[in-house]
Amino acid sequence: MRILLIGASGTVGQAVAGALAPHHELIRAGRQSGDVRVDLTDMASIERMYAEVGELDAVVTAAGSVHFGELVNTTPTQFLSGLQDKLMGQVNAVIAGIPRLRDGGSFTLTSGITADEPIRLGTNATTVNAAIEGFVRSAATELPRGLRINAVSATLLTEALEAYGPYFPGFPAVPGARVGQVYRRCVEGVGTGRVYKIWE
Amino acid sequence: MRILLIGASGTVGQAVAGALAPHHELIRAGRQSGDVRVDLTDMASIERMYAEVGELDAVVTAAGSVHFGELVNTTPTQFLSGLQDKLMGQVNAVIAGIPRLRDGGSFTLTSGITADEPIRLGTNATTVNAAIEGFVRSAATELPRGLRINAVSATLLTEALEAYGPYFPGFPAVPGARVGQVYRRCVEGVGTGRVYKIWE
Ligand SMILES: NC(=O)c1ccc[n+]([C@@H]2O[C@H](COP(=O)([O-])OP(=O)(O)OC[C@H]3O[C@@H](n4cnc5c(N)ncnc54)[C@H](OP(=O)(O)O)[C@@H]3O)[C@@H](O)[C@H]2O)c1
Ligand SMILES: NC(=O)c1ccc[n+]([C@@H]2O[C@H](COP(=O)([O-])OP(=O)(O)OC[C@H]3O[C@@H](n4cnc5c(N)ncnc54)[C@H](OP(=O)(O)O)[C@@H]3O)[C@@H](O)[C@H]2O)c1
Repeated sequence: MRILLIGASGTVGQAVAGALAPHHELIRAGRQSGDVRVDLTDMASIERMYAEVGELDAVVTAAGSVHFGELVNTTPTQFLSGLQDKLMGQVNAVIAGIPRLRDGGSFTLTSGITADEPIRLGTNATTVNAAIEGFVRSAATELPRGLRINAVSATLLTEALEAYGPYFPGFPAVPGARVGQVYRRCVEGVGTGRVYKIWE
Repeated sequence: MRILLIGASGTVGQAVAGALAPHHELIRAGRQSGDVRVDLTDMASIERMYAEVGELDAVVTAAGSVHFGELVNTTPTQFLSGLQDKLMGQVNAVIAGIPRLRDGGSFTLTSGITADEPIRLGTNATTVNAAIEGFVRSAATELPRGLRINAVSATLLTEALEAYGPYFPGFPAVPGARVGQVYRRCVEGVGTGRVYKIWE
């Protein structure tokens, strides 16, 4: 398959690339590195990316930031920033990507364990990840031509323990290699409208 | 209790008012009617409302629109409009409301059945409602002074059958009186971080 991976240079992106690259033609995208450059918060940039890469069998997104902070001190602008980045970035990649996918193709989005398990300072993360999972649930009912869409919700990756471990006290981490295989299952499998949870 | 009901004139708002007014001091808010005027999409307007009404034991929000339309034809601006209206409107009411609630007070937000059960043209609705439920799940862990927060997710109200029935084919409707009692349970009960679903 011909697969576009957006966020390929990141911790999750590298894990996904490791699982997909041996079996598929992988096109890596990112803001500052990769085969093609894109800013998911800018629809014009997304359209340019799709025009540049041509027909695809799958799009995987592993990019997006959210706001961390105490709810009571969060401004509407800060809260909205997470919605515009991690949620709308992936939503935009799907909307613009529908006509670019071959029949039977798929989208795989990235949410995260905080959708179900809140963490300190993480109300924006929980909100955004829950929204992504809702989006996937409904978009699956709308997609034409046998297109599929799923989300992967992982806990902390072992590779990210040093950076984010303190935000997830007592949460077991999972190796990127295992997470990568779940994305592979989304791309090569038959599921749609599903959220694949990886956290024990 | 002294309770602020935002969206009091609406179909859901009237059902909530019917359940709360006999037992409490109810202050009705809306954009164009009520004891106090507010536009939930404008934080300055929300702050003015809270300053005007003074101390409260509970805030109930039953207001907010989403975008309906085919996903593939939805623009980022249209998709964002639902996030800014129904989601951010209620989020703003909570953030600004925290210091206005007396110890042990509560917020009750409104999501909807489409969070779990997608409907045609309703991907924005599912996304927004799922986000509201995520918000409630996490905000509950953060609130100080025994404050609580919950969401009510109702199916179509009998009173809205004429207007929205065609979007919910085969979905049983529930009487507003029953829905109102669930909001009452949120306000007078002990639950927090819960989503109360009403749809059979
Ligand atoms: N790390 C974990 O343990 C973990 C676990 C579960 C879920 N997640 C979720 O997975 C996603 C990625 O996390 P990560 O830790 O892998 O992040 P990361 O290491 O910071 O990598 C982010 C990747 O996304 C790209 N990117 C960022 N913003 C972009 C934009 N606006 N447009 C296009 N590309 C953009 C970056 O490219 P450039 O560097 O070129 O900008 C980079 O390739 C996040 O949403 C995170 O919440 C992470
Ligand atoms: N109707 C149903 O069967 C049903 C079922 C489940 C969930 N819901 C959800 O419940 C919510 C209310 O639905 P509804 O049918 O009751 O709506 P509705 O009849 O149109 O009433 C909306 C109410 O909210 C107020 N309002 C609207 N936008 C506002 C804003 N920006 N700031 C402040 N107040 C605002 C309106 O006041 P003004 O008229 O003064 O502007 C009105 O009082 C919606 O989010 C809907 O999705 C509805």
